[in-house]
Amino acid sequence: MLTPASHEEVIDWLDAHLHALPGETVAVADTAGRVTGASIAAPGDHPPAAAAAVDGFALSAHVTVGASEYNPLMLRVADEGSGEPDQARQVVSGEALPTGADAVMPIVDADLRDGVLEIYGPVAAGGHVIPAGREARGGDRIVEAGRALRPVDLCLAAEVGIETLEVVRRPRVGLVSLHRRKTGQGVDPGRAMIRALVEHDGGIVQHEAPDGVPFAQRDVDLFLVLGGTGFGPDDEAVEALRSAGELAFRGVAINPGETASAGLVEGTPAILLPGPPLAAWFAYELLAGRAVRRLGGRGHVLPYGTRCATLARKVSSGLGRLECCRVRLAGDRAEPLAVADNRTLSTAVRADGFVTVPSHSEGFPEGAEITVYLYDQRY
Amino acid sequence: MLTPASHEEVIDWLDAHLHALPGETVAVADTAGRVTGASIAAPGDHPPAAAAAVDGFALSAHVTVGASEYNPLMLRVADEGSGEPDQARQVVSGEALPTGADAVMPIVDADLRDGVLEIYGPVAAGGHVIPAGREARGGDRIVEAGRALRPVDLCLAAEVGIETLEVVRRPRVGLVSLHRRKTGQGVDPGRAMIRALVEHDGGIVQHEAPDGVPFAQRDVDLFLVLGGTGFGPDDEAVEALRSAGELAFRGVAINPGETASAGLVEGTPAILLPGPPLAAWFAYELLAGRAVRRLGGRGHVLPYGTRCATLARKVSSGLGRLECCRVRLAGDRAEPLAVADNRTLSTAVRADGFVTVPSHSEGFPEGAEITVYLYDQRY
Repeated sequence: MLTPASHEEVIDWLDAHLHALPGETVAVADTAGRVTGASIAAPGDHPPAAAAAVDGFALSAHVTVGASEYNPLMLRVADEGSGEPDQARQVVSGEALPTGADAVMPIVDADLRDGVLEIYGPVAAGGHVIPAGREARGGDRIVEAGRALRPVDLCLAAEVGIETLEVVRRPRVGLVSLHRRKTGQGVDPGRAMIRALVEHDGGIVQHEAPDGVPFAQRDVDLFLVLGGTGFGPDDEAVEALRSAGELAFRGVAINPGETASAGLVEGTPAILLPGPPLAAWFAYELLAGRAVRRLGGRGHVLPYGTRCATLARKVSSGLGRLECCRVRLAGDRAEPLAVADNRTLSTAVRADGFVTVPSHSEGFPEGAEITVYLYDQRY
Repeated sequence: MLTPASHEEVIDWLDAHLHALPGETVAVADTAGRVTGASIAAPGDHPPAAAAAVDGFALSAHVTVGASEYNPLMLRVADEGSGEPDQARQVVSGEALPTGADAVMPIVDADLRDGVLEIYGPVAAGGHVIPAGREARGGDRIVEAGRALRPVDLCLAAEVGIETLEVVRRPRVGLVSLHRRKTGQGVDPGRAMIRALVEHDGGIVQHEAPDGVPFAQRDVDLFLVLGGTGFGPDDEAVEALRSAGELAFRGVAINPGETASAGLVEGTPAILLPGPPLAAWFAYELLAGRAVRRLGGRGHVLPYGTRCATLARKVSSGLGRLECCRVRLAGDRAEPLAVADNRTLSTAVRADGFVTVPSHSEGFPEGAEITVYLYDQRY
């Protein structure tokens, strides 16, 4: 009998051997979803000067004092130049105010007739004006390091005048499946699944023949091998890792996925995933996915949205193993699916999410408040 | 003064003019994140016959009755063929059982010496066996129509023997920015943001010059124009839509984003988004994003994970307008950011998420339980 390593041991080992990759310079427009290698600072104030917040007329607020429906103020509208006391200038939203102007009368609140503006009420100084530096002051850190850039982030970076950003290089993953040889299928279905997971985690699966030789690729940041991890004669992947490098862990106390193994090939981490797809999926999430996310500068939490739910039936789990329990949600209740079944992939397809039972726990009673990871809120 | 359309009116109009696009056939391995056009049925039982759930030895369970540590059972291991009463056959996980075998003795629970298997305990009939049809019975609907395919889904589809799937065609979006002309920036920062949002919603922004002419493109499913929606002279986009087709809505009661407009160009919906980025973002989410998601066969909910939180300060909102309030989370408390500010993009960058205040509400009091849409859980 083999004694698998604990999940914690393997995580510590992964974290010791995997670090965020170096940065690369990318045009701001192409950085959505990429992870910042360094924080982003505004190069100067933005807006650089006070600007109109709405379409309207820039003017000096003090001249509008006393204007009313019954006593409209008439102002000349200048084509160019400054907000002289007796003049207004038409501006569009976002345009810098002319010198001397300190307010904007919204176009919808005034009338323009033959070059003369009629104003029916006062506007306060600063009214409908975006002050200089409202978005950011020069030197302000607008985005932290290690953040997956949102669409609004890259927009703000471009707004303040930044053209390129330093983002963590995308992890390159060498993925070889040995599983298909056994099942006789032309293509291993699990390989497409793992590729999709790697890509969702920001990695790139290097192009290669799906039945390639494990560890033959160069220029990868991580090796993943699918299948050939069995504790029986079906251990090609383990033997290949022993030949090409060194095996660090043979088996991990997770269920499904307990035959997952790991080691190093010339300094590059290699993770061996079980061939059966449900086990491959869970071992990916806990081990390989963490490695991809770590190389890519991403956080350690499982990349799924969560919600709280009440367990509709008890879940038993083996002490010493981190277990995955798929659940269906009905309102606030989570119904476990096929608890004892660590093999049937359709349980994951039918599930809305999953619960993990820590290795120090023997499970959860009916009615327990649990945290469900939601399959459809992968981010 | 213009009276903007209500959010509900515009949504009804969008839903009446936009429907899921026809399907296209895609190799299963390339369908992650794509939306099923039809439900997926298993072509036959899977597995087609009972199979080993673990690496081990296939045998007839009844011969193991009485085996114990003190009275081990010895069985010959056959290279080929059936589970004769006095024989076992080595199998790997996933392999079909030979005729006559009804159980598998796990390799880790037995010893093999010189072609003879020593068994130290009984195994029940069906033990460590995956019954035929466990994953799916022929004709079973394994995935519903209208589902964004998860990695496990495409794996199951491939496992049961499906090679291609019918998925909704990706919406093609013609995106033109008029905003940059005004700001004088080389590229409109908002355009990159909208492109990223369209792509995240499964759409494709057709290649074109960023300063293209609105509505000049052909073969698009949706026109988006950014900027030129002002209620003042800055209304190029509105004029262009009036010339090229028909304007259906001039202004929508959402904040930010109230100058958003919509219409049809030769039957193709066109949505005009305000130029200021925060308004463009919110109008995208509520109107354009809904259109892209609807064309792509996706659901109507905002594509963000949610969580409940307690409002740390009151939020006021104008009756009759759907308002967006950005919030920061601190534990279970949501702190509103710059409530009255519908312009400053950095409020969205600093926020963890946002709350929407419905048009029939004047806001939420301090301490209210609210639902926060989480920026980082976009799915």
